[in-house]
Amino acid sequence: MTRLFNDPASFTEDMLAGFLDANSRYVVGVPGGVVRATETPSGKVAVVVGGGSGHYPAFCGVVGPGFADGAVVGNVFTSPSAQQAASVARAAHGDSGVLLLTGNYAGDVMNFGLATSTLRDEGIDARFLTVTDDIASAPVQEAEKRRGIAGDFPVFRCASAAAEAGYSMDEVERVARTTNAATRTLGVAFDGCTMPGSDAPLFTVPDATMGLGLGIHGEPGVANHAMPRADELADLLVDGVLADAEKLPPPIDSRRIAVILNGLGRTKYEELFVVWKTASARLSEAGYSVIEPEIGELVTSLDMAGCSLTLTWLDDELETLWTSPADTPAYKRGAIAPAVEQVRRTAVASGSAVEATIESDHDSRVAAAQVVLGFEAVHDAIVDAEEELGRIDAVAGDGDHGRGMVRGITAALEAARVAAEAGSGAGQVFRSAGDSWAAEAGGTSGVLWGAALNAVGRRLGDEGTPDAGAIADAVRLGYQAMLHLGGAQPGDKTMLDAIGPFSAALDAAVSGAHDWRTVWRDAAEIATKSAAATANLVPKVGRARPLAERSVGTPDAGAVSFGLCVTTVADLLPIATH
Amino acid sequence: MTRLFNDPASFTEDMLAGFLDANSRYVVGVPGGVVRATETPSGKVAVVVGGGSGHYPAFCGVVGPGFADGAVVGNVFTSPSAQQAASVARAAHGDSGVLLLTGNYAGDVMNFGLATSTLRDEGIDARFLTVTDDIASAPVQEAEKRRGIAGDFPVFRCASAAAEAGYSMDEVERVARTTNAATRTLGVAFDGCTMPGSDAPLFTVPDATMGLGLGIHGEPGVANHAMPRADELADLLVDGVLADAEKLPPPIDSRRIAVILNGLGRTKYEELFVVWKTASARLSEAGYSVIEPEIGELVTSLDMAGCSLTLTWLDDELETLWTSPADTPAYKRGAIAPAVEQVRRTAVASGSAVEATIESDHDSRVAAAQVVLGFEAVHDAIVDAEEELGRIDAVAGDGDHGRGMVRGITAALEAARVAAEAGSGAGQVFRSAGDSWAAEAGGTSGVLWGAALNAVGRRLGDEGTPDAGAIADAVRLGYQAMLHLGGAQPGDKTMLDAIGPFSAALDAAVSGAHDWRTVWRDAAEIATKSAAATANLVPKVGRARPLAERSVGTPDAGAVSFGLCVTTVADLLPIATH
Repeated sequence: MTRLFNDPASFTEDMLAGFLDANSRYVVGVPGGVVRATETPSGKVAVVVGGGSGHYPAFCGVVGPGFADGAVVGNVFTSPSAQQAASVARAAHGDSGVLLLTGNYAGDVMNFGLATSTLRDEGIDARFLTVTDDIASAPVQEAEKRRGIAGDFPVFRCASAAAEAGYSMDEVERVARTTNAATRTLGVAFDGCTMPGSDAPLFTVPDATMGLGLGIHGEPGVANHAMPRADELADLLVDGVLADAEKLPPPIDSRRIAVILNGLGRTKYEELFVVWKTASARLSEAGYSVIEPEIGELVTSLDMAGCSLTLTWLDDELETLWTSPADTPAYKRGAIAPAVEQVRRTAVASGSAVEATIESDHDSRVAAAQVVLGFEAVHDAIVDAEEELGRIDAVAGDGDHGRGMVRGITAALEAARVAAEAGSGAGQVFRSAGDSWAAEAGGTSGVLWGAALNAVGRRLGDEGTPDAGAIADAVRLGYQAMLHLGGAQPGDKTMLDAIGPFSAALDAAVSGAHDWRTVWRDAAEIATKSAAATANLVPKVGRARPLAERSVGTPDAGAVSFGLCVTTVADLLPIATH
Repeated sequence: MTRLFNDPASFTEDMLAGFLDANSRYVVGVPGGVVRATETPSGKVAVVVGGGSGHYPAFCGVVGPGFADGAVVGNVFTSPSAQQAASVARAAHGDSGVLLLTGNYAGDVMNFGLATSTLRDEGIDARFLTVTDDIASAPVQEAEKRRGIAGDFPVFRCASAAAEAGYSMDEVERVARTTNAATRTLGVAFDGCTMPGSDAPLFTVPDATMGLGLGIHGEPGVANHAMPRADELADLLVDGVLADAEKLPPPIDSRRIAVILNGLGRTKYEELFVVWKTASARLSEAGYSVIEPEIGELVTSLDMAGCSLTLTWLDDELETLWTSPADTPAYKRGAIAPAVEQVRRTAVASGSAVEATIESDHDSRVAAAQVVLGFEAVHDAIVDAEEELGRIDAVAGDGDHGRGMVRGITAALEAARVAAEAGSGAGQVFRSAGDSWAAEAGGTSGVLWGAALNAVGRRLGDEGTPDAGAIADAVRLGYQAMLHLGGAQPGDKTMLDAIGPFSAALDAAVSGAHDWRTVWRDAAEIATKSAAATANLVPKVGRARPLAERSVGTPDAGAVSFGLCVTTVADLLPIATH
């Protein structure tokens, strides 16, 4: 289990501070993550990688010459926010564009996608690709839906090496696409990892078995399998990856392969070498030449027990890139020729810009104070529910939902207080809270809550006391913002399946001229029941298919969270008399 | 726990085969371990490091330019044999001497000490030093008795870098001595590791506590301590190491230090960075400049949970050596300038020389066949007792005794069979068995059993049926060989405390003209009782003082083993009638 932390809520910040201190030769901190200690030279494409933390050396450990220009560092197993991704990309960008790379997860897709749009609006040639190497997470017919696991490493590496070699943006993007299509991973899990501050692992594997097809965010495998000997495991991994390549041939027809036998954290080097002995022999028998294999911990999952085998088919170009020099905190190879001129950066301190004052009237300021009370109550309720929400999420997901909600509501509450004390009206308090939620929480739910609270704030405005109609409108607009941004539909087993019924109930009752406080209480009950009913649904997006099926019987964590939030607010409301 | 293996008994061989396959750019295998893939150039001192395996990247992971020339690879947590150490040193040696370096453990001291004598007899300028960095294992007054833990790393590194820089043997030895005296480590353990094939960890730490002063062979800490926050742990480690340096000032009076914050295996990078954040600030407050700290897994202990802080005080020379380039499988730094001429080695296959035939008569060949039956019975008994012997040993030691005995008796039985089938007499069967036991088992007990069986074989000779007097003599001579080689005295809580009473009982009864078979049975009972009585003793050598005290109440594992061996033989003997 993860035992060393101060406040679990500041684990990532503390980790990052220690990492930056120990590696000041290589990296400097910027809001949202780290960039190389030297400026990106003119003419060089910047490569920015990222995702949640908990995977060291991925991703901040591979920033340096020959590898990434920057890494966006989210909370443990949580996508960084769009603001964080844009911030790091902006800092890493020289004058020739920036390629953002993540594994294929809904939160990363949403946040890095938004960041890419923002950067393009600013005139930066920003592009975004996701890695889809995990063959267990979707069949070959849906290969584009696969998750990114240890295959992140060769894709990030080859694209970065291409950028270092002076390739144009189009060419760096081509290398990244080709490497991804030529990369396949199969993994196994023996035991789950434990989040900082938690007493229990995110999952356990029954004795004498293993989970086949692990995820790297504490997701268990997609199928149980009897625990094999080391040589049997080697057979299983080699056979699995080669069979996938038979069904969906990689774009490179060669017998040269880069190989990673990756330990998740608790499966140690000696064990990996025992597995490698057989895997190497099997690959050799199959006619493959292995080019500089990496046997060790490259993409970990805290202290999870398990390992994965990644093959990347190589042509001459990819072999040159795969074996080129690199010099980063955690990955070094060969000798890097010092650039002609290296300009050392200075670290950029984190901190938000001072909020521009927006005019508000007395009534809206009174409403704003009530909104802050609401955020306080919701904050306390979410903090109490953190572990339970994590457990629900871990059944088929990455177990980060509780932590993400706590970070989001904590940031939102702080921003709401600051805004209210500065004399903002209700609208501005919601908008500030939404911006902070998205920026600090990251992940899928962070960006969605941020968008929804912003929509609510825009509708409520900063003058007058919001009436029942405005409140129902605001909720509906928040719901629609989530629908638009998230790409999910009602019935897909997401928070939408609780918010939609809640919004509809508010709309219906308010149009019947009921007092909104009574209506809210009834709608909150509907939201809670709807959230519970998501247990019967199968998620449609953002999950590996077998995990999606496994989730039947457990409600969606985001829907449960939403039900909890609106119920908590209902408890604050005086019961209206009819 | 360690989950991936084929046959637990071949774990080290399988690991080494996989390691060599993955790292053929750097290393080739030789009997007993690995050496660099290129020949040691003329004029360069060779540095050979070693110890048991289970500590990767230590020790085979740091063989390469800028670091070690060779690594001797023992079984998990077990000293390599003298034969293995001599073999690797011979292969690594160029023409300018070889420095052998290990942590300070009884088994390593004995085996590498013997190897050094052998090499010097062959005309090689061989020297041997041990690392004594673990401040928890003995007070400053007995600093020379301290164990070597993560401090192995800076000592091996600086000595190796000096050799790479062309220092003479005397100068390389001086650097190693100075670095060791300037290096101090304090560690903590949160949970024990599990040996391959075992179901239970070598120790556990009570909930909400940690062991202070860990060992790296599954030894628990020397004192229990409440589980701290990460920043409290940083304080405790920094304070502990600095206080030791106050009491016993390092030979280098400077404020520059090399630092290693080492993870034992299951305590992950992110956690170490959280601790480092505070440790770095504390060292800075104390006026220290940290030179290129290493935060990660450098000297592990399988999947043990825990970490340690190592400080090495640096002068200009050591700072240059500490920061010099290195290029090895698991540790790389900067750019290594290729040597003018690098000659690639070819791997050397393992295998023992064909035994020279020694003349024997019929009676001795009959006795030899009975000796083989004895080895078979003892083998089966030891295999059955393996886990129990490991558990006894783990109370205050490294838990390797059961595994070491199994490897030893298995090798001895095989060698005894081969010798007997080749027509050897009883003496040669014992000598072959002893040589194989020492060579294959390694560790402290391996070298002692090897010496004892050799002494027995020399006394019995290869002609005639050994009589009662010869048997009693042989046992006494075996006991004396152990006394001479091991440096322990009766009462020091070692196997001697069972063998001495056994030998004395045989001597007394045989001089009374009793049949030796009856006498053996009585003596075996005495040996078993004497072994049990070692529970009341405190070990005097080879153990950290607090661990020694902890061992009171548990018998010595080696003494228990001996009792089991002679009892097993007694059960084979027909009961003589008086």
